[in-house]
Amino acid sequence: MGVKAKNVAYYIQAITHSSITEDNESNNERLEYLGDAILGAVIAEYLYLKFPNKNEGFLTEMRSKIVSRNSLNEIAKEMGMLALMNFNEADKNLKSSHIFGNALESFIGAIYLDHGYEKTKKYILQVIIKNHVNLTELLQQGYNLKNKIISWAQKNKRELDFNDSDCQTVNGRKIFYIDIILDKVHITTGTGYTKKEAGEKAAELALIKLNIKEDS
Amino acid sequence: MGVKAKNVAYYIQAITHSSITEDNESNNERLEYLGDAILGAVIAEYLYLKFPNKNEGFLTEMRSKIVSRNSLNEIAKEMGMLALMNFNEADKNLKSSHIFGNALESFIGAIYLDHGYEKTKKYILQVIIKNHVNLTELLQQGYNLKNKIISWAQKNKRELDFNDSDCQTVNGRKIFYIDIILDKVHITTGTGYTKKEAGEKAAELALIKLNIKEDS
Repeated sequence: MGVKAKNVAYYIQAITHSSITEDNESNNERLEYLGDAILGAVIAEYLYLKFPNKNEGFLTEMRSKIVSRNSLNEIAKEMGMLALMNFNEADKNLKSSHIFGNALESFIGAIYLDHGYEKTKKYILQVIIKNHVNLTELLQQGYNLKNKIISWAQKNKRELDFNDSDCQTVNGRKIFYIDIILDKVHITTGTGYTKKEAGEKAAELALIKLNIKEDS
Repeated sequence: MGVKAKNVAYYIQAITHSSITEDNESNNERLEYLGDAILGAVIAEYLYLKFPNKNEGFLTEMRSKIVSRNSLNEIAKEMGMLALMNFNEADKNLKSSHIFGNALESFIGAIYLDHGYEKTKKYILQVIIKNHVNLTELLQQGYNLKNKIISWAQKNKRELDFNDSDCQTVNGRKIFYIDIILDKVHITTGTGYTKKEAGEKAAELALIKLNIKEDS
């Protein structure tokens, strides 16, 4: 994975999924929480410096795309996390879930504990971003989750609507509300500081609620 | 504020609210985005080390309490951000909003650009956490937003219900859905990895939707 380990125990914990052990101090969930925060900070700075003229809405959105569960999971698989990880292979659902992306976050947490912030930042920028993130593509890429639920509805001949249900101004910022209506039934409402963001959030919640999987 | 400035421009930008200038490169919104991420990483590590036996759900919840808009806004006011800030004082709503907490995040972004990660971490731990965060109190503190909307409903003689609407298992983790029903009308749904978290999220969304302010 391109890291020299000083303390191997951190990395072993990072690749140990909770399907192997429920023990907090042995599985990778605490490290995932830590790595997620470190990754968020590094990507925030990277985009801040990369796009000096863009507003915080743009930066937040770009960051969400890079660190989304799907994106991290793909990166983790490209980096070989599947072969490395220790998880219950009898559970067939796990392989199609996001455990590899989560473990990549844990792995970042391990690097941080082992080597500190600056080296972790260097690792994220030079190994992960440089080799696995295509900014140009992300800039062009639309909102995937909204597209995904629309495709699903078309394929399954369901009637799907995104309705603007409300817009309020709170502390000087507009907040948008988008309802998702499926076959005339209200499924969920997404909120966000832009209509796009609210629509994407609504789609995300609806995909979970309707239990729509990756490739369906 | 307890920081020696190398580059004063960062700090001036950090205390300049968008009501003074809409310009991205002059107001504090980009720095707020950066500072929020740095603060999140520092607090994540602080709690990770402070509570070595707690699971990631507990750590995430504690972090949310520390970096919540209300909490940061109170801290910022205690630190004197009101006197320091440059905002449109004719807009009476701004003083009761969260602009001070937001500016504190911007200020953290400024320290980071000026002094790097390690010094910013030291500042957050030794100036902000040590003087302004009472962990014992946060540990005892219940879920404020749920309490808040319940108090509001009682005071205003409205009929309020929190209903468990659903529970699903996604990638091996349970996700809970809590509906808020006000006078028999569905207001919003909150989701979370625990019932408590889902209830709190639902309350948060409902407070925004119903436009319930701080002291009402």
